Amino acid sequence: MLKINSVRLWQSLMELAQVGATAKGGVRRLTLTDIDRQGRDLFVRWCGEAGMSTEVDRIGNIFARRAGTDAQALPVAVGSHLDSQPSGGKFDGAYGVLAGLEIVRSLNDAGVRTRAPIEVAAWTNEEGSRFVPTLMGSGVFAGVFPLEKILDEKDVDGISVREALASTGYAGQAEPHRLGAYFEAHIEQGPVLEETRTTIGVVLGALGQRWFDVAITGQDSHAGPTPMQTRKDALLAASRLVLEVNRIATTFPDYARGTVGFMQVKPNSRNVVPGEVRMTVDLRNARDVTLSAMVEELKRIIAHVEKETRTEIALNEVVYFPPSEFAPDLVDSVREGAKKFGYSQRDIVSGAAHDAVYMARIAPTAMVFVPCEGGISHNEIENARAEDIVAGCNVLLHAVLERAGIDTG
Amino acid sequence: MLKINSVRLWQSLMELAQVGATAKGGVRRLTLTDIDRQGRDLFVRWCGEAGMSTEVDRIGNIFARRAGTDAQALPVAVGSHLDSQPSGGKFDGAYGVLAGLEIVRSLNDAGVRTRAPIEVAAWTNEEGSRFVPTLMGSGVFAGVFPLEKILDEKDVDGISVREALASTGYAGQAEPHRLGAYFEAHIEQGPVLEETRTTIGVVLGALGQRWFDVAITGQDSHAGPTPMQTRKDALLAASRLVLEVNRIATTFPDYARGTVGFMQVKPNSRNVVPGEVRMTVDLRNARDVTLSAMVEELKRIIAHVEKETRTEIALNEVVYFPPSEFAPDLVDSVREGAKKFGYSQRDIVSGAAHDAVYMARIAPTAMVFVPCEGGISHNEIENARAEDIVAGCNVLLHAVLERAGIDTG
Repeated sequence: MLKINSVRLWQSLMELAQVGATAKGGVRRLTLTDIDRQGRDLFVRWCGEAGMSTEVDRIGNIFARRAGTDAQALPVAVGSHLDSQPSGGKFDGAYGVLAGLEIVRSLNDAGVRTRAPIEVAAWTNEEGSRFVPTLMGSGVFAGVFPLEKILDEKDVDGISVREALASTGYAGQAEPHRLGAYFEAHIEQGPVLEETRTTIGVVLGALGQRWFDVAITGQDSHAGPTPMQTRKDALLAASRLVLEVNRIATTFPDYARGTVGFMQVKPNSRNVVPGEVRMTVDLRNARDVTLSAMVEELKRIIAHVEKETRTEIALNEVVYFPPSEFAPDLVDSVREGAKKFGYSQRDIVSGAAHDAVYMARIAPTAMVFVPCEGGISHNEIENARAEDIVAGCNVLLHAVLERAGIDTG
Repeated sequence: MLKINSVRLWQSLMELAQVGATAKGGVRRLTLTDIDRQGRDLFVRWCGEAGMSTEVDRIGNIFARRAGTDAQALPVAVGSHLDSQPSGGKFDGAYGVLAGLEIVRSLNDAGVRTRAPIEVAAWTNEEGSRFVPTLMGSGVFAGVFPLEKILDEKDVDGISVREALASTGYAGQAEPHRLGAYFEAHIEQGPVLEETRTTIGVVLGALGQRWFDVAITGQDSHAGPTPMQTRKDALLAASRLVLEVNRIATTFPDYARGTVGFMQVKPNSRNVVPGEVRMTVDLRNARDVTLSAMVEELKRIIAHVEKETRTEIALNEVVYFPPSEFAPDLVDSVREGAKKFGYSQRDIVSGAAHDAVYMARIAPTAMVFVPCEGGISHNEIENARAEDIVAGCNVLLHAVLERAGIDTG
């Protein structure tokens, strides 16, 4: 049975991790910086050495192609991103790109030809740390974001995406093209696989997200002289909402999640009843109808809490990201791949967004998750076991082959 | 019936408010600054003009004395403080000091002699804005704080109390002396009198206070990939505590109050489950035994919330200030005074600490509250109606006279 080269995959990951390596063992490879350029150059060189032809589109996405035997077949793409968080890890993104490269290398070693071409994609600026939005390259490719507008986005130093693309030499000319399928391997960035001792996460889709800013206005007053009954305590109202967001997320079905991650209290003084709170609400769900029901429930609660606490609560939606369901037949290929190797597997839904989420809008898409240590990501201590990294790539290899078709002629 | 001079009292208040006046109509007269020195000088000059002799003790408290006819009688003191918050108002403190002065002036006008001497006291650094602790001067006078330690306290610029006293010329030599009684008039700094359309608050005592720092340790994790069931959400735990503090304060008797005024969330990012929260708890009650019961209930709840949220919660007491009960006969004098003038009155408990709280430890003490606009204090917009200010001073005049005794000889 065809397998990838474990040692080569791991060594390539470690070699790429040297580009922008941090003292604590992590990676700082912000998109379209010179460090990112070095990482891209290394990837492009490896692709060339693997006999692939490379093209770059106008937002800097790199597509390295291994030709298929059927000139009419749409490419089966495998990819992810090479950029990192400011204090990121070795695996987030890099794994998915190098897993694609390793599949091609392994097919080369085995002398296997596929009917459809295989493409390895490296999407520009997935992280959104330097330029917003996140998922920039895949979003432009999928037609979610208008290219010209995105090229004008600036980082904190006033450098535009257009300028950064030019200075790194990755302002390409390729036009968007159709894909026959898209696969992405990624560390889970959550605790489920590790806690359940599962090697392969078969990703059914990604949770939809609705993000809100909440502004609560009460009246600040002295903690001593102000009786409880006359207070307009904005923090009391905020705390009620935190509990309700948690209640909603723990009682609604379909992988519901709810988080208040940010809270700012004013005047934030020990003996003053808070008059103002700003906070965020992040609601997620695998089904859009359930996600909407969660929002409606939140609104109902807010009206109630306003009365109860004599405060005013303004709710402002800032992000809406619909749930994404992956292609059932590709998801099955992932399941079958894991079964072939006897890897433990479980269905999982991605809580975070990935480039695959935008790809799912234009092509049949699936993802493979592998465990990461403590579920920790976006951190220099991000870590994963080599055997899991290898397992995910083996599964991907067979899923890709099933889709691309082995040319036995 | 003897009455104070309304116009003179108001004009003196307005004149003193020019010393350190802010653009928005407030006062910035931080303790032992040159502005405070100017305010003190003005007060001392007025006292001299009213025929009083003045002495200053080693912490800078000023005592202006109008002699009584009985050389053995302990003085009846009336006072408050001349320092203000950084953005303070015209009435907080200044009212109590100038009410004492106005009583003396009015007795002079009427040619009334008292058996006991009358003293007007201006306590150093009540606010605690420049030097900690608050209630510094009255605390030293009452033997709560050791003088030498307090003299070494420094402001943010490294200037000690000792140096500030010397530079303003208010480092006196007077030793603490005994008081026969102590009265203090003050704006309420709360909403009760205004909301109930009451002119005179007969203050029964001051709430005890127990202040806590709370540190909650959970585990930060990604809002997307982390299922609700495995989270250790420090903000969820904090919000539970906010609600419980409110429940305790609204269900316990004896003027219970409970406030979470300060909260800091880490990492405080929209899509990260908070791993750490620092917050404060301020519990107040008129009875020490009830205050202790509130603390016990809080501790019981904390143990419960720790389990429920899988977090660790550290509770650290930083201030304990026992409840203070004023002298019933002096409180009655205040009641009687209000009755004489036909002013509306109600019993009230001071939620905040005042110099009177430390005086109550060494002498029979009472306070008179008058309404302030919107219950707002420690703010440049602090305001009070002249008729209420005058009423409070009239009540005080008669309470003082009852205690000092009119010499009809």
